[in-house]
Amino acid sequence: MNKKELVGQIRRKRSFLCVGLDTDSAKIPHAITHDENAVFQFNKRIIDATAPYAVAYKPNTAFYENEGASGWVNLEKTIHYIKATYPEMLVIADAKRGDIGNTSGRYASAFFEQLKADAITVAPYMGYDSVEPFLGFEDKWVILLGLTSNTGSADFQHLKLENGNTLFEEVVRKACSWANSDQLMFVAGATQPAMIRKIRTIAPEYFFLVPGVGAQGGNLAEVAKAGFNTEVGLLVNASRSILYASNSADFAEAAAAEAKSLQKQMELLLIKNKLLS
Amino acid sequence: MNKKELVGQIRRKRSFLCVGLDTDSAKIPHAITHDENAVFQFNKRIIDATAPYAVAYKPNTAFYENEGASGWVNLEKTIHYIKATYPEMLVIADAKRGDIGNTSGRYASAFFEQLKADAITVAPYMGYDSVEPFLGFEDKWVILLGLTSNTGSADFQHLKLENGNTLFEEVVRKACSWANSDQLMFVAGATQPAMIRKIRTIAPEYFFLVPGVGAQGGNLAEVAKAGFNTEVGLLVNASRSILYASNSADFAEAAAAEAKSLQKQMELLLIKNKLLS
Repeated sequence: MNKKELVGQIRRKRSFLCVGLDTDSAKIPHAITHDENAVFQFNKRIIDATAPYAVAYKPNTAFYENEGASGWVNLEKTIHYIKATYPEMLVIADAKRGDIGNTSGRYASAFFEQLKADAITVAPYMGYDSVEPFLGFEDKWVILLGLTSNTGSADFQHLKLENGNTLFEEVVRKACSWANSDQLMFVAGATQPAMIRKIRTIAPEYFFLVPGVGAQGGNLAEVAKAGFNTEVGLLVNASRSILYASNSADFAEAAAAEAKSLQKQMELLLIKNKLLS
Repeated sequence: MNKKELVGQIRRKRSFLCVGLDTDSAKIPHAITHDENAVFQFNKRIIDATAPYAVAYKPNTAFYENEGASGWVNLEKTIHYIKATYPEMLVIADAKRGDIGNTSGRYASAFFEQLKADAITVAPYMGYDSVEPFLGFEDKWVILLGLTSNTGSADFQHLKLENGNTLFEEVVRKACSWANSDQLMFVAGATQPAMIRKIRTIAPEYFFLVPGVGAQGGNLAEVAKAGFNTEVGLLVNASRSILYASNSADFAEAAAAEAKSLQKQMELLLIKNKLLS
């Protein structure tokens, strides 16, 4: 998927919602048969229920790896189901990978060619040659960690450099020279809207993937105010608030209601900021 | 495995060699039947051949994920085989994971509880709460990326901070306050021995996992000189030079010869530095 298609999708759906598929097998409602396909069955119901309100899905690999090889099968089935049923969706593998070039190339092949994800989150610590192997795939995206939503972001990301920038500003600044906004996005945590504004100044044309709205406490209106650009430029992720909106048989309806509520808030923000009429 | 056992093992084997199981299915010799178990069968032969000369094995997850769910099965079988057959070996999952606390906990469970690895490599960018969930397991280790062996390490790891430290020095300094040398090691790339010396000054008691000897050009004697402490303090990894020492039917013998040659060099360095008599 390219940027133009993504922006078109956001305008059609009147939503910039990404649904995080951080599926915890212990939290799957009893309404789903608890066999080794349970995670996929649950995801399928969540996807079908929330698809009208979302433009992206983001399975986090930790939740699948925790189930071993059958977890990897569920991850694969989930991504293939989305791509087959809702080809307009952006599928982000939230994997936070990154290794020496030779090895990052294997991750790129695993996520883009085998799993068929459209995008992968990548950690920046190892620098350019750890990111570059992910950039050689047409219509595929690297989403580089800029500023994360957790408290630990203060430990290194906010460190002041000799040149006056903080580390996360330097990461974003340097990465903008590696790839344009058709191939690269940044993670910018919702818990720090003032910092999203700083990142927007450095990277005006790039999309930001914003985690941390909902369970982690980030505020959607503040994020939109700080992060919108003329092509929207934001994908806001919600995971637990949607997946576990109900733990009864009505879990899919509850997930749909939660996703719809976020979509409505997003629509109003898009209109208010003249990104939709 | 605890630190005392690891040091004991190094002294008994007269080796601080870690064999990197970066197994590329395309490079497996024809002598192995090329079915979905090929990677495990190859690893098993390599492990049996090199076990007399090594104290640790390090499968890199990228090479397994690249084969999908069957790759994950081969990773699991490989680790379980090592733990069952050579319980004295340290098994390092070279995964370079790291996520918000809730999610890092899933990775910790996946690698320590499901896969039974003794150690996992972790990326530092997301800070303390992304590392902490890996620290709560008895006799298990976090190996935090300090300074990596690739050219991209210059992009961020070498950045000078306002306080005069470089970023990698700050990462090591701060992480030493998170966990002691019984739970934490650092990655310190062999391609920059002068920097290994700097890290040794900051973290005198910690083990360093040193990639980059062999295919990447690092020099073993220089690494030893810069990195040894009174308990050795080094695990030096070699991958491609051992795995692909021969692509014929004698691949295991060739791997053994290569591992033995490294062990002999290590033994001499240990004796020279009065760490063995």
